[in-house]
Amino acid sequence: MAEIKKVAVIGTGVIGNGWIARFLAQGHEVIAFDPAEGAEQRTRKVVDQVWADLEKLGTAENASKERLSFVPTIEEAVKEAYLIQENVPEREQLKKDVLASIDQYAQPDAIIGSSTSGIMPSTLQEGLTHPERVMVAHPFNPVYLLPLVELVGGKETSEEAIETAKAFYTSINMKPLVIRKEIEGHVADRLMEALWREALHLVNDGIVTTEEADAAIIYGAGLRWAQMGPFLTFHLAGGDQGMRHMLEQFGPALKLPWTKLEAPELTDELKEKVIEGCESHAGDTSITELEQKRNEFLVKLLDLVEDYWPASKI
Amino acid sequence: MAEIKKVAVIGTGVIGNGWIARFLAQGHEVIAFDPAEGAEQRTRKVVDQVWADLEKLGTAENASKERLSFVPTIEEAVKEAYLIQENVPEREQLKKDVLASIDQYAQPDAIIGSSTSGIMPSTLQEGLTHPERVMVAHPFNPVYLLPLVELVGGKETSEEAIETAKAFYTSINMKPLVIRKEIEGHVADRLMEALWREALHLVNDGIVTTEEADAAIIYGAGLRWAQMGPFLTFHLAGGDQGMRHMLEQFGPALKLPWTKLEAPELTDELKEKVIEGCESHAGDTSITELEQKRNEFLVKLLDLVEDYWPASKI
Repeated sequence: MAEIKKVAVIGTGVIGNGWIARFLAQGHEVIAFDPAEGAEQRTRKVVDQVWADLEKLGTAENASKERLSFVPTIEEAVKEAYLIQENVPEREQLKKDVLASIDQYAQPDAIIGSSTSGIMPSTLQEGLTHPERVMVAHPFNPVYLLPLVELVGGKETSEEAIETAKAFYTSINMKPLVIRKEIEGHVADRLMEALWREALHLVNDGIVTTEEADAAIIYGAGLRWAQMGPFLTFHLAGGDQGMRHMLEQFGPALKLPWTKLEAPELTDELKEKVIEGCESHAGDTSITELEQKRNEFLVKLLDLVEDYWPASKI
Repeated sequence: MAEIKKVAVIGTGVIGNGWIARFLAQGHEVIAFDPAEGAEQRTRKVVDQVWADLEKLGTAENASKERLSFVPTIEEAVKEAYLIQENVPEREQLKKDVLASIDQYAQPDAIIGSSTSGIMPSTLQEGLTHPERVMVAHPFNPVYLLPLVELVGGKETSEEAIETAKAFYTSINMKPLVIRKEIEGHVADRLMEALWREALHLVNDGIVTTEEADAAIIYGAGLRWAQMGPFLTFHLAGGDQGMRHMLEQFGPALKLPWTKLEAPELTDELKEKVIEGCESHAGDTSITELEQKRNEFLVKLLDLVEDYWPASKI
């Protein structure tokens, strides 16, 4: 049986509750704080609702919905916590104030992860007593099912804290992606936001409805992106030569008005970064082997989604 | 047994061969033309390679790899075809020349679909004798597995031809998305290209490697996008109030430098379009029901991808 850790969750909206469900399902003890009236009741309802799904996916041996308590102050929530997850509304000053309280009452070596979508960790850790253990730990909705968590350290975050956090989030069945440079919106939201902004343009210009834009993703790229991201997908679209051929063939499209987003100049340096990235990612696996694996996956996925696609009626 | 139709495929690169495998698996007869040396041999190899996957997914009763022939001229390929799929390289003049030949020799009521990624149908049909049956029919790689096909008519395309094409592509297990306005890159590629351009910026700016960018999609949004597109996904992220709440909460982020793409102004009109689009898409299904369905799907998908994810080693 894995060690039961005390985890504090500060702020129990959609994201905070998602974290709570995941922490409980992975067998940890959760101490939660949220000043809103009825917060505890709402959290327990969410946990009840999603517990069956979590059990289907596989919970830890010692998982229990009962290992959750709400306390009336931040101090009580964080004082014995191994890790503190902050999920208050996305307002910079509010987050900084809450983090200052957490920093004051937490054990000096407790990890503090902020779920912020866009604020940079160096901003969040300004003026804290122990800034070295503060970082962005940005999850994706629904947090209790999606494995991605972006870990971004600020100027004062220690390597050690990042490593400890990475090990912890991995231990609760997540896929931590350590991002080495701070940037507005981190990485995943920037990619999603680019697509989202173009989708809004298409709706705004009367080209498609929202449902049609959704269909344009679901039945094409969406299926592939559950297994491979944009780079490896294009690596396979390039035939035996992979990304090298792909950039020759579709590189010029970067200059076409295919989106309202300006593309970067496709310099030799960028080309090599992209090609080498894909080749190193693929390693010893040939394009043909990657294709076979993709096909096997897609066949099974297509079979699975038949029952769930009517979410799009087009 | 469904009627066996004669389908012509002009140009047998990655996309043309993908079409051939799909047409054959759906029980049709394919007459192919490609002037390149060894083209027939390459096509037959691809069909052999993917046939087992297609059988797993379910082929038509009368499906046969043998119902494929290569002919030495466009005339012979198209003269008796019910539908002609054009997949020659993405060069405007080349496509126009090939389409002129197809138009000359095809039956006057045969449907002509171009697989072009970016050229507008009005450009492709200029100067043809029967332009009313010419349209863009843009598929996604791998064509034999992914169901999306964008149908875009030009100025001279008839409603009737679009309806006929829609029925045909539906009959071969595809999800045709009829796009009512011509635009560079159509719709799906614009959405993908926006994400792709931002991904290239992130690699170019040294924020992530290509593999990390892939992971940022795979383990988060990619899982959701196999079932729901960006709009319905955000509709669910907004809690009980759906997209209306979501736009209040994250609308302001459109002004933040989260991508290098300029977002459209979030006018009341655009807001309403987006909110009404999502609400009409969801219909009578409540957010809670949509969430339950999404969770069921994700639990099964997570189970499935465990075996296939090592494509990303992060």
